[in-house]
Amino acid sequence: MHSAYPADDTAQSAEGVDVSALLERGRTLSTPVLRAAVDRLAPPMDTVAAYHFGWIDAQGRPSDGDGGKAVRPALALLSAEAAGAAPEVGVPGAVAVELVHNFSLLHDDLMDGDEQRRHRDTVWKVHGPAQAILVGDALFALANEVLLEIGTVEAGRATRRLTTATRKLIDGQAQDISYEHRERVTVEECLEMEGNKTGALLACAVSIGAVLGGADDRAADTLEAYGYHLGLAFQAVDDLLGIWGDPDATGKQTWSDLRQRKKSLPVVAALAAGGAASERLGELLAADAKSSDFDSFSEEEFATRAALIEEAGGREWTSQEARRQHAVAIEALSGVDMPERVRAQLVALADFVVVRKR
Amino acid sequence: MHSAYPADDTAQSAEGVDVSALLERGRTLSTPVLRAAVDRLAPPMDTVAAYHFGWIDAQGRPSDGDGGKAVRPALALLSAEAAGAAPEVGVPGAVAVELVHNFSLLHDDLMDGDEQRRHRDTVWKVHGPAQAILVGDALFALANEVLLEIGTVEAGRATRRLTTATRKLIDGQAQDISYEHRERVTVEECLEMEGNKTGALLACAVSIGAVLGGADDRAADTLEAYGYHLGLAFQAVDDLLGIWGDPDATGKQTWSDLRQRKKSLPVVAALAAGGAASERLGELLAADAKSSDFDSFSEEEFATRAALIEEAGGREWTSQEARRQHAVAIEALSGVDMPERVRAQLVALADFVVVRKR
Repeated sequence: MHSAYPADDTAQSAEGVDVSALLERGRTLSTPVLRAAVDRLAPPMDTVAAYHFGWIDAQGRPSDGDGGKAVRPALALLSAEAAGAAPEVGVPGAVAVELVHNFSLLHDDLMDGDEQRRHRDTVWKVHGPAQAILVGDALFALANEVLLEIGTVEAGRATRRLTTATRKLIDGQAQDISYEHRERVTVEECLEMEGNKTGALLACAVSIGAVLGGADDRAADTLEAYGYHLGLAFQAVDDLLGIWGDPDATGKQTWSDLRQRKKSLPVVAALAAGGAASERLGELLAADAKSSDFDSFSEEEFATRAALIEEAGGREWTSQEARRQHAVAIEALSGVDMPERVRAQLVALADFVVVRKR
Repeated sequence: MHSAYPADDTAQSAEGVDVSALLERGRTLSTPVLRAAVDRLAPPMDTVAAYHFGWIDAQGRPSDGDGGKAVRPALALLSAEAAGAAPEVGVPGAVAVELVHNFSLLHDDLMDGDEQRRHRDTVWKVHGPAQAILVGDALFALANEVLLEIGTVEAGRATRRLTTATRKLIDGQAQDISYEHRERVTVEECLEMEGNKTGALLACAVSIGAVLGGADDRAADTLEAYGYHLGLAFQAVDDLLGIWGDPDATGKQTWSDLRQRKKSLPVVAALAAGGAASERLGELLAADAKSSDFDSFSEEEFATRAALIEEAGGREWTSQEARRQHAVAIEALSGVDMPERVRAQLVALADFVVVRKR
């Protein structure tokens, strides 16, 4: 059973967990292995990948770049601990999940035409589309290699889970692209897409360390349920930040998701809500889809759309959805036996995900 | 030991092997499994993939398209038989290798800007760059899934070999792209690139069925040696067809590789040969690299370059290289115990690869 106040004296309450330290541990243990894996790539792919990860700048000079929040590596190490193994057992899983995540970023940025990520020009902008495709492919292959070279039955099972998650990730991107060209997307379709695009790989991060540590499929599936709903909470927050986030914090443009006509949760919830603001929003977005001036829209035009989404209740619904998914994730944890300290840390990470500003 | 005239009465001489029947068997056994795998893709990726494989046309109508030569599936089934297993044991391997091969075609055609393949518009021309990237990614993931869902230790080993081959494939494409921008590429660099781009996956096709059938790593490595050199022979013939092939047979444009400034074997061998024709060719290609008119070159201008390559000995050297690699491939077969019938069939397939016109 889950308890935020575990009895054993080595554990901390969820409130007492230092989430920064957990994220830092994930980064510290996994980054050297990640860098060693990336160093195996043939030139110029090693350089392009190093640029993407923020280890060098566009001129090839060493850089102390923003490598992202590193939630997934932290989860993969906790995953190993949930199965009673040392955190280090989860490292190849953390690295493999990060490689798949970054493979998808490289390809998605190109497909979506995104020019900025983590405050820097995207790979296709700096090194061209061919390198973005190629290095993405290489990171995907490397992910499987890092796991399979362990050579155990557990590694094979971990790779199978990663492969399933990757297929869902790709399904989600396919849905995301097709929804951008559709006038109406239901809330259910949006949640399915986000479950594929974000939930599946976060779920895998939470099971992969445990599988490498010898957990059975039932325990791994339950951990994945926590990760899946955590992913949906994560994405709901991302969707809020994609419209109302502070560009200085997110590293993205203002109204980023609106500029890309993304049918994200606040938008589809607002369109489904009914009422005057919802209808006016629907008319505007339908006109935008046919407009040839869309690319030169002013800040005010996007601000108008954001205000209508908020007025129709899309912002509030999405905030509530993040809290709902957070609660379901926490509840799922009660289905797995694990050290109470680890359970408290997983709870704290879930709390962090829904309150973050970037 | 290899013998073209095996003693057991069920075998046929290499000369007597019906290569068309072997290719047809590979196609017949693997295509239904390949189609079932592709059918798992979320729309519209299933449709895009079906177009790529030639199962439907650009309007979505069923098509009896040219699915390629199907050398790899035939090899994967023979590979299982080489380990004493039934050919059916090799089918998931055949399908996985075909999926990886077609993943690379989808991405390479986009990176290289190739508009035609197998007499039809390429996927990025018909369905756009995003679908070419996405469906390529999906086929790559599906390849791993098809193998790993077998769930055996052998399947894990097979997946690891496929992953290693895929990494080399990607390395080879990276080299290929970088060589197009370089003035000089050595014959050794070209062979290394072609070994990565073509040899590695053909090698995997020849080991994957055997691994699924329980062969040990030594036997698998030796089978890969045959496949690797067969791949180099295959690619040398491809390089000849890329310049002097009949467009009606190859489905490519005339002088296809010259139009793309490919530093293929005939070109690098001609440039390395020395003498008047070699020097004149070097001057022309150096000027071409800087020319803004290159894209509007006439047939005659490409014909001039092809004639210089031939005069400098590049065509003859590449023909000999195909025969050399063919001989090394056949010789490698003597290192593995296998039914003499299977050995004769592998020899016959190698013979076919070096005499083909498409």
